[in-house]
Amino acid sequence: MEIIDGGVTAAQGFQAAGVYAGIKKKRKDMALVYSVVPAKGAGTFTTNVVKAAPVKWDIKVTKESPFVQAVVLNSGVANACTGAEGEINNERMAKAVADAISIPAQAVYTASTGVIGKQLPIETIVEGAKILATELKAGREAGAFAAEAIMTTDTYSKESAVSFIVDGIEVKLGGMAKGSGMIHPNMATMLGVVTTDLNISKELLQEALSADVKVSFNMISVDRDTSTNDSLLVLANGLAGNAEITEKNEAYNSFCKALNYVTTDLSKKMAADGEGATKLFEVQVTGAPSWEDASVISKSIITSNLVKTAIFGNDANWGRILCAMGYSGIDFDPEKVDLTIESADGTLKLVENGMATDYSEEFATKILSGNEVKAIADLKSGSATATAWGCDFSYDYVKINADYRS
Amino acid sequence: MEIIDGGVTAAQGFQAAGVYAGIKKKRKDMALVYSVVPAKGAGTFTTNVVKAAPVKWDIKVTKESPFVQAVVLNSGVANACTGAEGEINNERMAKAVADAISIPAQAVYTASTGVIGKQLPIETIVEGAKILATELKAGREAGAFAAEAIMTTDTYSKESAVSFIVDGIEVKLGGMAKGSGMIHPNMATMLGVVTTDLNISKELLQEALSADVKVSFNMISVDRDTSTNDSLLVLANGLAGNAEITEKNEAYNSFCKALNYVTTDLSKKMAADGEGATKLFEVQVTGAPSWEDASVISKSIITSNLVKTAIFGNDANWGRILCAMGYSGIDFDPEKVDLTIESADGTLKLVENGMATDYSEEFATKILSGNEVKAIADLKSGSATATAWGCDFSYDYVKINADYRS
Repeated sequence: MEIIDGGVTAAQGFQAAGVYAGIKKKRKDMALVYSVVPAKGAGTFTTNVVKAAPVKWDIKVTKESPFVQAVVLNSGVANACTGAEGEINNERMAKAVADAISIPAQAVYTASTGVIGKQLPIETIVEGAKILATELKAGREAGAFAAEAIMTTDTYSKESAVSFIVDGIEVKLGGMAKGSGMIHPNMATMLGVVTTDLNISKELLQEALSADVKVSFNMISVDRDTSTNDSLLVLANGLAGNAEITEKNEAYNSFCKALNYVTTDLSKKMAADGEGATKLFEVQVTGAPSWEDASVISKSIITSNLVKTAIFGNDANWGRILCAMGYSGIDFDPEKVDLTIESADGTLKLVENGMATDYSEEFATKILSGNEVKAIADLKSGSATATAWGCDFSYDYVKINADYRS
Repeated sequence: MEIIDGGVTAAQGFQAAGVYAGIKKKRKDMALVYSVVPAKGAGTFTTNVVKAAPVKWDIKVTKESPFVQAVVLNSGVANACTGAEGEINNERMAKAVADAISIPAQAVYTASTGVIGKQLPIETIVEGAKILATELKAGREAGAFAAEAIMTTDTYSKESAVSFIVDGIEVKLGGMAKGSGMIHPNMATMLGVVTTDLNISKELLQEALSADVKVSFNMISVDRDTSTNDSLLVLANGLAGNAEITEKNEAYNSFCKALNYVTTDLSKKMAADGEGATKLFEVQVTGAPSWEDASVISKSIITSNLVKTAIFGNDANWGRILCAMGYSGIDFDPEKVDLTIESADGTLKLVENGMATDYSEEFATKILSGNEVKAIADLKSGSATATAWGCDFSYDYVKINADYRS
C-alpha cells in the first residue's frame, strides 16, 4: 500500500465539483461526487433516534438500489427535524442532480450538514445542483473543491488517499470528510465519502465498511454529541479491472487495510480539527481482557471534559484520567494501572500500579505541550488494545458554540 | 414542613466546626460534624471503580458500625489513588478525631475532596483534628463554618434545613454539601452531610436515603465526570423524642418529604454553582412511558456540551436538545415531541410535534437570559416525568480546569 496525494477523485472514473450555491455567505456550500460508471454503494449511518432526512434516504438507497453513481452534499443546513417537508426537499435535491446528469434519483446519495431544524432553501439547492453538474471534473483540484464545500466549523478540509495492489493490478482508494463539532460518531461520522475503483461485491463492500468504522470513525469524539446526520458513504466502481472480490481472500484483506488507512487518517484529521482544539489527543488502552473493554475505557477518557481541559492546560492531572476510567462502566483493578504520556518531546510514566511515580512535572508539561499528545493506560489484565482519538477543550469551543447560529 | 434557616447544626444535639488547618492556602480546610449522642448513620457513595480511601472506610462504617457520632472532612486533597498509604492516613484522620472527642474510630465517618493522587498531609490533618475538637459548637454559625471549610472551586457554601412534625413532635433536618466540578453523581454527590434529630431505624434511614438520591443528587450534572469521592452521609440522633420509626407509615413519609426538600435544595444549589456556570438549567421530561426513560433523556440533555454552550449564549438552538434526546439510548417518536422553555421572563413553545413553531427568537433569547432557565420536553407517550438539574457551559469552566492544580 502506498499513500498518495488526493481525495475522492483519486480513483479512476471519479469526478467531483464544489461550488458556491448561495446557502451560506460567500463560501462554497454544495459538492458533488460522481462515478462515470455505475458503482456499488455502501454506507453506515447515525444511531441517533432523530435521523435527518438525507440519512433516511441513504439508508433506503443502500438497501434497495442495485447501484449508485453520485453523492450530492450541502453545508449550512442539516435538514434534520424538518418533518415531511424535509423529506420532500431531500428527494428534490437528489432528483435535481439525477436529472442534470441523466441517472436515476435512486442512484444518488444525499448528505446535509449545518443547523438542525431549518428547512433547506430548496430552490437554491436545485439551482446549485445544475451548476454542480456542469462543473464536474476529474483530477486533484475538483476533489479538493468538493472537500472544501462540505466544511462547516472545520478549519481545514480533510482528504486522504492510497493505492494498493490486487492480483497485480493497481487499485486506488480516496476519501473526504467533514466534522468539527457534534462529533461522537456512532456507526459513522458526520459526513464522509470514500471512492475506489476496486471491483468488489456489494455485500463485502458493506461488510468491510461496517467492520472498519468500529475502529476508525467510531473511535473519535470531539464533544460526546452524536449527530443526527452522521453518514459515511463508499462508492466502488470497478474500473481498476481486477476480478470481482466475492470472498474474504488476500485481495479483500488488502482492501480492508487500504480502507482503514484512509478512514483512520480522516478520523484523526477530524479529531485534531475539533471545535476549538489546539492539539490531537490520542488514548491507547492496552493490557485489557477484551477489545470492547479497552474501547469503552479509551472513549471514556477521550470524552471527559476534565481530562480535555487539563490537556489544554498542559497539566499532567492524571487523577482525572484514572477517574474517567473508573466511571466508564468497565470493571478493572485500579491498583494495577500504569499510565504513560508521550509526544514528539518524549515519553514519561506518570503512574505505576495506580499510584504516582516520582515524575518531573516540568517534563510532563513539556510533553503535553506538543500538538499530538498520546496517553497509554496499561491495565495489565489481558492482551487487548484499543485506540481512541479526540482533542483538548479550549475557550474557543465555548466561543464557537455559544453563538453558532449568529 | 417548614423551611428554616440553618444547616448541619439545625437539628437538636448536633455541633460543628470549620477551621483552617494548613492544607490549603489561608482558607478553611477542615470540618467536623458531631452528635452529642450516638446516632444512626446511613450513606450512599460513588459507583466509580476508582474509590477514594475515605469512601472505602465509610462503606465499612455504614455496614458494620452500630452507631456513628461524627463526620470529619477535609478539602484540598481527595485521598484518591493513594494506595495502602492513603488508607492508613484515612484511618489516622478518623482516629485523631475519635481520640480528641473520646468516641471509637469506627463511629467516625471521613470525607476528603480536592486533588486526586496526592497523599494527605497527615500530620497537618492530625493537628487539625485536635483544633476541630476544641472548636465544636452548637448553633447557626458553627454549621456555616463547616459548610465553608469543605468548599473547593465552589463560589458559595451550600446549606439547607427544614422542620417537620412527627406524632405531634417537631423534628429538624438540615444538611450541607459541596461540589462544583467533577459533578455527575452516581449514587450520591461529591460531599454531603445531612443531620436530623429524628428517631428512626437504621434500615429505614438507609432505605429513605437510597431512594432519595435517585431523584435528587443523582439528577444533577455539571460535567458528566463522576467523582472518585462522592459521599452523602446522614446522621439521625433521635433527640427529637418521637417514637422510633420502624415501618413505612405516615411519619416515614413526612421524613422522606423533608429529606427530599433538603437534598433537592442542596442539589440545585450545587448545579447552579457548577464550575464557570452563569445560570441554573433545569430540564423536565414529561409524557414519558416510564420515569427511567424520562430520567435518561433529561440527563442526556443536561449533560450535552452543545446544549450547555447554547444556553450560555442565550441561543434557542433547540435542534441540539432534540439531538441530545435522540442519542440518549431511549427510543421515542421525535415527531411527537413538544419543547417549551421558561424562566422568570416568560414561557415559550419552541417545538411542536418535532418541528419549529413560529416563535420569536428575540423573546426566546430574553427567556434564556434569566439566571434560572427551564426546558420542558413533552414526549406525549405516557405519564411519567423526571427532572434534572445542571448549568450552562462558559469560558470559565475551561479556565478553572485548565489550571486547577496551579
